[in-house]
Amino acid sequence: MNEREFISALRALATSPEARGLEDDAAVIEIGGETLVLTHDTLVDGVHVLEGQDPADIAWKLVAVNLSDLAAKGAEPVGILVSHMLGDDDHRFIAGLREICETYDVPLLGGDTVRAEGRRVWGCTAIGRAAHRPVPSRSGATAGDTIYLGGPIGRAMTGFESLRDDGEQDDTSYRRPTPQLELGEKLASLVTAMMDVSDGLLLDASRIAHASQVTLSLSSKALEPLAPQGRLDEALRWGDDYVLICTGPARLEAELPLTPIGEVLPRGAAAVMLDGEPPHGDLGYTH
Amino acid sequence: MNEREFISALRALATSPEARGLEDDAAVIEIGGETLVLTHDTLVDGVHVLEGQDPADIAWKLVAVNLSDLAAKGAEPVGILVSHMLGDDDHRFIAGLREICETYDVPLLGGDTVRAEGRRVWGCTAIGRAAHRPVPSRSGATAGDTIYLGGPIGRAMTGFESLRDDGEQDDTSYRRPTPQLELGEKLASLVTAMMDVSDGLLLDASRIAHASQVTLSLSSKALEPLAPQGRLDEALRWGDDYVLICTGPARLEAELPLTPIGEVLPRGAAAVMLDGEPPHGDLGYTH
Repeated sequence: MNEREFISALRALATSPEARGLEDDAAVIEIGGETLVLTHDTLVDGVHVLEGQDPADIAWKLVAVNLSDLAAKGAEPVGILVSHMLGDDDHRFIAGLREICETYDVPLLGGDTVRAEGRRVWGCTAIGRAAHRPVPSRSGATAGDTIYLGGPIGRAMTGFESLRDDGEQDDTSYRRPTPQLELGEKLASLVTAMMDVSDGLLLDASRIAHASQVTLSLSSKALEPLAPQGRLDEALRWGDDYVLICTGPARLEAELPLTPIGEVLPRGAAAVMLDGEPPHGDLGYTH
Repeated sequence: MNEREFISALRALATSPEARGLEDDAAVIEIGGETLVLTHDTLVDGVHVLEGQDPADIAWKLVAVNLSDLAAKGAEPVGILVSHMLGDDDHRFIAGLREICETYDVPLLGGDTVRAEGRRVWGCTAIGRAAHRPVPSRSGATAGDTIYLGGPIGRAMTGFESLRDDGEQDDTSYRRPTPQLELGEKLASLVTAMMDVSDGLLLDASRIAHASQVTLSLSSKALEPLAPQGRLDEALRWGDDYVLICTGPARLEAELPLTPIGEVLPRGAAAVMLDGEPPHGDLGYTH
């Protein structure tokens, strides 16, 4: 069973109408007059982080990728639960956890620790309170909307390379991604669709296109200044950037730190177009 | 850093007064006029489940241990998030997940899937709505209270042995633990302290004793009928039973399926006493 088959089996199981978490970044539930957003992400050593990375960076990333899912829902963090596999340098893990919790003012509510031989795995669940209803999702993009990106892409890629090769490039974007919580909250009432770019811009754009039954038409001219020089093709397919992608009315860039990168078209043959053509090769997550 | 040091470092970090999840089975938060209970547990292949076990049983246990944490809080499940590491027989994992979600009428809200080489790890977060406030915790047991157990102990132990050795004993208790959700909800307004027995009765009783600053005095005569014949000593130290242990007024067994197993004393030299003596050797989780 591959991931898509597994998720589609899960979705068949999740008959609850709220079970949007299975096809979206997060689950949305109504409770006690509040709309809560719940998300869980797992990091695996050597897969989502480099083997031998500082556990402080791992703790930061573990929490950051979950907060980024909350950002995509325009949700304010209520707290996190962390699952930690004990190992070397656990005090560094604690230090990184403290840093990110303080930086984003997120309470650590609880969690679990396990001890086991073998490859280490970490989990985090984040709970947030939605700033706006309806909560933004992947579906909702409409032909005529402008597509926006909340920041640069490809910096995690160059950061990863530098960290792996002991290079001199800034590796902060890979080690310590920045969840766009404030931007997400501001966008929640303005956008028609929103998500965070975790698996590569083309792949994540195609997810909005599928969920919204539209085509996302991107412009490489608009994207080039957002990517490392000469590497747009790779940057479009690399993940881990955790910037927000959203669709909505024109000229939002006048009010908010957004870059227009294309427009939403009625659904055509391809989910995503780049300069009027379907992108060549795979759409994403090549690392 | 061992688990105790790690958790105590985490606790120092969790300055929020709600961060009870770090020393308790679950975190309790107030939101939108509701009291929510959040818990996360991780299962590791070969540690918390036998290597080669049917993934349907793993899925069941993964969810059951989290629902058991909700039961200990007297909380009704709102939903779960599941983190699954893809592997062989994923359709069996889905089947087990469906069974437990249907059995306890718990919606699957979302989750995460990862693919990695090496030992498999699963995570589950359960969210519940507290039936009664204040929510029962480990602290609150008072000298003079009666101590109760919600079911037998040691059945997971004999089930584990049978499963491991291809024996003929019933292994259901080990493979498919039963969270005592209904009992927990009924007890929430009656008890002074409550938790579920996951790491062994003596060890978990000592946790109530430490949190409540009392001594839990247990009677082997009362416990013997609840344990496999001739194996009380082991059953007291084995975990995975997921029955509720609670303290409260006398004679609750007249109304509810509980067995009185001892009484709460003012804090003495030992956290737990068995027939008036501190138990010999280690308190728990010897498998």
